Amino acid sequence: MKHQQLAGASVNPQANVYFGGKCVSHSLSWPDGTKKSVGVILPSTLTFSTGAPETMECVAGGCEWRMAGAETWQRSGPGDSFSVPGNASFEIRVSEAYHYVCHLG
Amino acid sequence: MKHQQLAGASVNPQANVYFGGKCVSHSLSWPDGTKKSVGVILPSTLTFSTGAPETMECVAGGCEWRMAGAETWQRSGPGDSFSVPGNASFEIRVSEAYHYVCHLG
Repeated sequence: MKHQQLAGASVNPQANVYFGGKCVSHSLSWPDGTKKSVGVILPSTLTFSTGAPETMECVAGGCEWRMAGAETWQRSGPGDSFSVPGNASFEIRVSEAYHYVCHLG
Repeated sequence: MKHQQLAGASVNPQANVYFGGKCVSHSLSWPDGTKKSVGVILPSTLTFSTGAPETMECVAGGCEWRMAGAETWQRSGPGDSFSVPGNASFEIRVSEAYHYVCHLG
Protein backbone atom coordinates (compact mmCIF):
# COMPACT_ATOMS: atom_id res chain seq x y z
CA MET A 1 0.00 0.00 0.00
CA LYS A 2 1.32 3.42 -0.94
CA HIS A 3 0.91 6.00 1.80
CA GLN A 4 0.71 9.71 1.40
CA GLN A 5 3.93 11.27 2.63
CA LEU A 6 3.77 14.20 5.01
CA ALA A 7 6.01 16.76 3.26
CA GLY A 8 7.98 19.69 4.62
CA ALA A 9 7.91 18.53 8.22
CA SER A 10 10.30 19.29 11.04
CA VAL A 11 10.79 16.03 12.89
CA ASN A 12 11.68 15.70 16.56
CA PRO A 13 14.10 12.77 16.51
CA GLN A 14 13.29 11.74 20.09
CA ALA A 15 10.37 9.34 20.11
CA ASN A 16 7.42 9.55 22.47
CA VAL A 17 7.18 6.16 24.18
CA TYR A 18 3.93 5.46 26.03
CA PHE A 19 2.71 2.44 27.98
CA GLY A 20 6.07 0.68 27.96
CA GLY A 21 6.32 0.91 24.19
CA LYS A 22 2.79 -0.19 23.29
CA CYS A 23 2.47 3.26 21.69
CA VAL A 24 5.43 4.96 20.00
CA SER A 25 5.18 8.24 18.10
CA HIS A 26 7.34 10.96 16.62
CA SER A 27 6.28 14.61 16.76
CA LEU A 28 6.15 16.72 13.61
CA SER A 29 5.71 20.45 13.13
CA TRP A 30 5.48 22.88 10.24
CA PRO A 31 6.53 26.51 9.86
CA ASP A 32 2.87 27.62 9.94
CA GLY A 33 2.50 26.13 13.43
CA THR A 34 0.72 22.94 12.39
CA LYS A 35 1.50 20.05 14.72
CA LYS A 36 0.99 16.36 14.05
CA SER A 37 2.49 13.13 15.21
CA VAL A 38 2.98 9.81 13.43
CA GLY A 39 2.74 6.73 15.55
CA VAL A 40 1.86 3.12 15.98
CA ILE A 41 -0.06 1.27 18.68
CA LEU A 42 0.74 -2.41 19.15
CA PRO A 43 -1.86 -4.95 20.31
CA SER A 44 -3.27 -3.69 23.61
CA THR A 45 -6.16 -1.75 25.12
CA LEU A 46 -5.04 1.70 26.21
CA THR A 47 -6.64 4.83 27.65
CA PHE A 48 -5.41 8.18 26.36
CA SER A 49 -6.07 11.66 27.68
CA THR A 50 -6.11 14.67 25.40
CA GLY A 51 -4.92 18.19 26.12
CA ALA A 52 -5.86 19.86 22.85
CA PRO A 53 -8.52 18.39 20.58
CA GLU A 54 -7.10 15.84 18.16
CA THR A 55 -8.06 13.86 15.12
CA MET A 56 -6.71 10.34 14.73
CA GLU A 57 -6.30 9.25 11.12
CA CYS A 58 -5.69 5.58 10.41
CA VAL A 59 -2.86 4.94 7.95
CA ALA A 60 -2.67 1.14 8.15
CA GLY A 61 -3.99 -1.63 10.33
CA GLY A 62 -6.86 -0.54 12.53
CA CYS A 63 -8.33 -0.13 15.94
CA GLU A 64 -11.57 0.11 17.84
CA TRP A 65 -12.11 3.19 19.96
CA ARG A 66 -14.67 4.77 22.28
CA MET A 67 -14.87 7.83 24.47
CA ALA A 68 -14.44 7.15 28.18
CA GLY A 69 -17.80 6.04 29.54
CA ALA A 70 -19.20 5.02 26.16
CA GLU A 71 -20.39 1.47 25.73
CA THR A 72 -19.95 0.91 22.04
CA TRP A 73 -16.63 0.42 20.32
CA GLN A 74 -16.30 1.99 16.88
CA ARG A 75 -14.04 0.58 14.21
CA SER A 76 -11.42 2.76 12.50
CA GLY A 77 -9.52 1.36 9.52
CA PRO A 78 -7.23 2.71 6.80
CA GLY A 79 -8.44 6.10 5.60
CA ASP A 80 -10.84 6.53 8.53
CA SER A 81 -10.50 9.32 11.08
CA PHE A 82 -12.09 10.11 14.39
CA SER A 83 -11.94 13.29 16.46
CA VAL A 84 -11.62 13.65 20.20
CA PRO A 85 -12.27 16.88 22.14
CA GLY A 86 -9.64 18.47 24.36
CA ASN A 87 -9.35 17.50 28.03
CA ALA A 88 -11.06 14.20 27.37
CA SER A 89 -10.25 10.51 27.65
CA PHE A 90 -10.71 7.80 25.10
CA GLU A 91 -9.90 4.12 24.84
CA ILE A 92 -8.25 2.36 21.94
CA ARG A 93 -8.35 -1.40 21.49
CA VAL A 94 -5.87 -2.80 18.98
CA SER A 95 -5.52 -6.38 17.83
CA GLU A 96 -3.17 -5.69 14.92
CA ALA A 97 -0.75 -2.77 14.71
CA TYR A 98 -2.63 0.52 14.31
CA HIS A 99 -0.61 3.08 12.35
CA TYR A 100 -1.89 6.62 12.67
CA VAL A 101 -1.38 10.29 12.07
CA CYS A 102 -2.54 12.41 15.00
CA HIS A 103 -3.62 15.90 13.93
CA LEU A 104 -3.42 18.26 16.90
CA GLY A 105 -5.47 21.37 17.60
CA MET B 1 17.12 18.32 26.58
CA LYS B 2 16.55 20.20 23.37
CA HIS B 3 17.00 18.11 20.26
CA GLN B 4 17.88 19.31 16.83
CA GLN B 5 14.85 19.06 14.60
CA LEU B 6 15.17 17.44 11.19
CA ALA B 7 13.65 20.08 8.91
CA GLY B 8 12.03 19.81 5.49
CA ALA B 9 11.43 16.08 5.68
CA SER B 10 8.85 13.97 3.91
CA VAL B 11 7.59 11.51 6.49
CA ASN B 12 6.20 8.07 5.75
CA PRO B 13 3.34 7.84 8.25
CA GLN B 14 3.50 4.04 8.41
CA ALA B 15 5.95 2.95 11.09
CA ASN B 16 8.54 0.24 10.67
CA VAL B 17 7.98 -2.24 13.49
CA TYR B 18 10.82 -4.71 14.10
CA PHE B 19 11.24 -7.48 16.65
CA GLY B 20 7.67 -7.32 17.91
CA GLY B 21 7.96 -3.63 18.62
CA LYS B 22 11.33 -3.61 20.37
CA CYS B 23 12.42 -1.31 17.53
CA VAL B 24 10.04 1.20 15.95
CA SER B 25 11.09 3.74 13.34
CA HIS B 26 9.62 6.18 10.84
CA SER B 27 11.26 6.72 7.45
CA LEU B 28 12.15 10.21 6.26
CA SER B 29 13.26 11.48 2.87
CA TRP B 30 14.27 14.76 1.31
CA PRO B 31 13.91 16.17 -2.21
CA ASP B 32 17.68 15.72 -2.81
CA GLY B 33 17.34 11.98 -2.23
CA THR B 34 18.66 11.93 1.33
CA LYS B 35 17.10 9.16 3.39
CA LYS B 36 17.07 8.82 7.16
CA SER B 37 14.91 7.22 9.77
CA VAL B 38 14.10 8.22 13.32
CA GLY B 39 13.54 5.43 15.77
CA VAL B 40 13.73 4.01 19.23
CA ILE B 41 14.95 0.67 20.54
CA LEU B 42 13.49 -0.50 23.84
CA PRO B 43 15.45 -2.66 26.31
CA SER B 44 16.62 -5.76 24.44
CA THR B 45 19.56 -7.23 22.57
CA LEU B 46 18.91 -7.27 18.83
CA THR B 47 20.80 -8.18 15.67
CA PHE B 48 20.32 -5.94 12.63
CA SER B 49 21.40 -6.49 9.04
CA THR B 50 22.24 -3.61 6.75
CA GLY B 51 21.59 -3.26 3.05
CA ALA B 52 23.22 0.08 2.42
CA PRO B 53 25.86 1.49 4.77
CA GLU B 54 24.35 3.42 7.64
CA THR B 55 25.35 5.71 10.47
CA MET B 56 23.49 5.47 13.76
CA GLU B 57 23.37 8.74 15.69
CA CYS B 58 22.25 8.65 19.30
CA VAL B 59 19.70 11.32 20.16
CA ALA B 60 18.86 10.28 23.73
CA GLY B 61 19.37 7.30 26.00
CA GLY B 62 22.09 4.99 24.78
CA CYS B 63 23.16 1.56 23.67
CA GLU B 64 26.10 -0.74 23.36
CA TRP B 65 26.87 -2.13 19.94
CA ARG B 66 29.33 -4.42 18.17
CA MET B 67 29.76 -5.81 14.69
CA ALA B 68 28.75 -9.46 14.33
CA GLY B 69 31.67 -11.60 15.47
CA ALA B 70 33.30 -8.84 17.50
CA GLU B 71 33.91 -9.47 21.17
CA THR B 72 33.88 -6.00 22.60
CA TRP B 73 30.77 -3.90 23.09
CA GLN B 74 31.14 -0.19 22.44
CA ARG B 75 29.05 2.42 24.19
CA SER B 76 27.09 5.02 22.20
CA GLY B 77 25.41 7.86 24.07
CA PRO B 78 23.76 11.18 23.19
CA GLY B 79 25.65 12.92 20.41
CA ASP B 80 27.68 9.81 19.55
CA SER B 81 27.48 8.08 16.17
CA PHE B 82 28.74 4.83 14.76
CA SER B 83 28.86 3.62 11.17
CA VAL B 84 28.13 0.19 9.80
CA PRO B 85 29.05 -1.01 6.29
CA GLY B 86 26.46 -2.32 3.86
CA ASN B 87 25.54 -6.00 3.80
CA ALA B 88 26.74 -6.45 7.35
CA SER B 89 25.29 -7.44 10.70
CA PHE B 90 25.61 -5.73 14.01
CA GLU B 91 24.24 -6.21 17.49
CA ILE B 92 22.71 -3.58 19.71
CA ARG B 93 22.23 -4.04 23.44
CA VAL B 94 19.91 -1.56 25.13
CA SER B 95 19.10 -1.24 28.81
CA GLU B 96 17.31 2.09 28.60
CA ALA B 97 15.47 3.41 25.54
CA TYR B 98 17.90 4.25 22.73
CA HIS B 99 16.61 7.06 20.51
CA TYR B 100 18.40 7.36 17.22
CA VAL B 101 18.61 8.91 13.79
CA CYS B 102 19.73 6.40 11.16
CA HIS B 103 21.51 8.08 8.24
CA LEU B 104 21.33 5.83 5.19
CA GLY B 105 23.76 5.56 2.31
